Amino acid sequence: MNLPVDADRLRADIEANAAFGRVETDDPDAHARTNRTGTEANREARDRLVARLRDAGLDVTVDAVGNVLGTWTPESADPDAAPVVSGSHLDSVPEGGIFDGPLGVYAALEAVRAMRDEGVEPERPVGVVSFTEEEGGTFGNGLLGSTVATGELALDEALALSDAEGETLGEALDRIGYRGGDAVDAATPTDAEGAPTTLEPASWGAFYELHVEQDTTLEAAGAAAGVVTTITGITHCEATIDGEANHAGATPMDERTDALAAASEFVLDVEAAANEVVASSSPSAVGTVGSLSVAPNATNVVPGRVEAGVDVRDVEAESMEAIVDAARDSLARLERERGVETEFERPFDVAPTPMSDRLREAAHDAADAAGREAIDLHSGAAHDAMRVARVTDASLLFAPSRDGISHNPREWTDWADCAAATEVLAGALARVATDGR
Amino acid sequence: MNLPVDADRLRADIEANAAFGRVETDDPDAHARTNRTGTEANREARDRLVARLRDAGLDVTVDAVGNVLGTWTPESADPDAAPVVSGSHLDSVPEGGIFDGPLGVYAALEAVRAMRDEGVEPERPVGVVSFTEEEGGTFGNGLLGSTVATGELALDEALALSDAEGETLGEALDRIGYRGGDAVDAATPTDAEGAPTTLEPASWGAFYELHVEQDTTLEAAGAAAGVVTTITGITHCEATIDGEANHAGATPMDERTDALAAASEFVLDVEAAANEVVASSSPSAVGTVGSLSVAPNATNVVPGRVEAGVDVRDVEAESMEAIVDAARDSLARLERERGVETEFERPFDVAPTPMSDRLREAAHDAADAAGREAIDLHSGAAHDAMRVARVTDASLLFAPSRDGISHNPREWTDWADCAAATEVLAGALARVATDGR
Repeated sequence: MNLPVDADRLRADIEANAAFGRVETDDPDAHARTNRTGTEANREARDRLVARLRDAGLDVTVDAVGNVLGTWTPESADPDAAPVVSGSHLDSVPEGGIFDGPLGVYAALEAVRAMRDEGVEPERPVGVVSFTEEEGGTFGNGLLGSTVATGELALDEALALSDAEGETLGEALDRIGYRGGDAVDAATPTDAEGAPTTLEPASWGAFYELHVEQDTTLEAAGAAAGVVTTITGITHCEATIDGEANHAGATPMDERTDALAAASEFVLDVEAAANEVVASSSPSAVGTVGSLSVAPNATNVVPGRVEAGVDVRDVEAESMEAIVDAARDSLARLERERGVETEFERPFDVAPTPMSDRLREAAHDAADAAGREAIDLHSGAAHDAMRVARVTDASLLFAPSRDGISHNPREWTDWADCAAATEVLAGALARVATDGR
Repeated sequence: MNLPVDADRLRADIEANAAFGRVETDDPDAHARTNRTGTEANREARDRLVARLRDAGLDVTVDAVGNVLGTWTPESADPDAAPVVSGSHLDSVPEGGIFDGPLGVYAALEAVRAMRDEGVEPERPVGVVSFTEEEGGTFGNGLLGSTVATGELALDEALALSDAEGETLGEALDRIGYRGGDAVDAATPTDAEGAPTTLEPASWGAFYELHVEQDTTLEAAGAAAGVVTTITGITHCEATIDGEANHAGATPMDERTDALAAASEFVLDVEAAANEVVASSSPSAVGTVGSLSVAPNATNVVPGRVEAGVDVRDVEAESMEAIVDAARDSLARLERERGVETEFERPFDVAPTPMSDRLREAAHDAADAAGREAIDLHSGAAHDAMRVARVTDASLLFAPSRDGISHNPREWTDWADCAAATEVLAGALARVATDGR
């Protein structure tokens, strides 16, 4: 079974969505948009999605945190069967690209339309979902809508998150008409007491997310689609190194406690630890000191304090721990050898997330049937599929990214590549919705 | 010959000056002031100095860049003989202490008063000077008034320097009445064409500056005064390291060009080079990477660009060159080994400045006569005496700084210590003005 998708229809949807929050640039290869939660551009992108879901005959639900779901329940389907759902997000980073998120939402819709057009008769409903604020930066740290829907963050806590101006997420969603479905005449899920609540991915039979790769593996392999085996775990650590600020001219070398010299050893220790893990056990491991702030940060003052932000990721939890341990060991050594005082915190920690084997298999079968090459790879970035995988079977598929560029106006995936990856998605959804794999 | 100074009179002058730009703090040990060029506080400090110079019978000159000079020409002196001048500055860093600068100005005035009170009969005039904007930060990088007066910066270029609001130094001095002496009924030096010009330190027979040490050498030795042998040379270098910013999750370790990891090696290379020079040849050498700015500086992004500010100082020019060469070599190595691109600039470079032997000897003689311990040391910080030394004999004397703290509201020198160091200054000035050493 192969499901040809309508490449032009998909392109029209993505281009129309790209207009909401468009940012003009001088670069002819650039297509920039800024689509933050709660903005007018964000309302417009949601309104158009709701309209397009309805155009395709889907029933629309908007939950209490603004997640939008369209459900196709053809006559062939048992309306009570656990649905197969696919989607991603419509928000963007500031001056981000037009594919990161929207491709996954509109590819899911295109897949439903292709099933309908080809006369596929699924045994269970098929859903198209758009999660709220995947990128983070306005109300949260990212994956917000899927984090709430999968129960990792309480609804009331999420709605109380506030942006830089102090407006809460709840107020922002009310303002744009997406706190529940009332304002757009859509259904709102309710809990046992009848109060508005969120979508419940735990009740879904399966979830697929198609996303741009944001790296060059598919491009280098000439493959149409990537089938993610594992989404890497991610931990963020904050190291603080306190030395003693002093006059750079009047303080002899042997009387210094230079926080930046100590921090420099720390940066190199983290890099060396990651390289060692890569060489010895897990080639996918990465360790990065991405941020460093120095105080007082004047050329003529010995640095007194440095704060460093560390990002550690791998598909193996053990590898991540090895790098984090090395970072802690480095600080302990610097306390002994350089007399600095250090602190180490780990404010963010998510374990590696394996994707569902049966859904991966269905994706490979769909690629084979379509004559498209699909290869296995891992994801170094976090996606909503990571959250959904905590509560049901989930799969993450990738489309190629030109030069691996993403979170950038020069992010690009050729329209033919968008269609090819969508064809794989459509085939996988049809298989899982039809034979219940 | 010993000249007892009036400790209370000196203290009253310094405390009165401390009121101009006073900043209230909660710390009972703090005495903060902010006295920037061109502010009302700066005008008040200058006005009071002019009044106190006149109270002591000195003739006041204000030059075209706002430097203030009071000249005592007793009957014993040949009015055409090259004067002996002493002084420092009245401006401060933001929330600086009350001694850095004002001690040197009012100690010079107190020395003149002590000579007069003790009936000293100098053969040449004795001057008290206050230089404009020693600290820098408003119109220039520091040592502004002495740099112009010694001919290292043209007067018109100096007057055209502008502050953050775009007002020029010339406009600011006009506004507060200190562009020349007209507004305060004082003399203004003129050039051969009769145009207003600056004081001419090249015509002075000798220059002494008393300043707080800003380090702990005198405190540790229990000495009353420091006699500076050499003011260290200072060079500032700016290193830029360009790598490639990338997603910290999606970029494997072996595909990175991490600008911060490279910069960390650079920081440690500069530190190691300074330590090596200290161990092998010049214990006073220092090398500091004091500032580091990382872009994009996000925990989850491999750093793409780092800018580092390097400060190198020593009393030996050769040692400074060894450290600067090591910094350049480090960047060249990082280009080869890490594939980064680097730039190296050296926007500021002042050679080490030896102080006058005859003036140092006079200071030691004065200390001996007063029964005060004076020790030789070097200065790691720049002072106006560094500029004056380019054109005439100059000497820098230090008073003890409690805990070495300076550029800070907790800067402190006990009043008895102020008086003791002033006694050494007065004796030295009297010797040089009297016997022409």
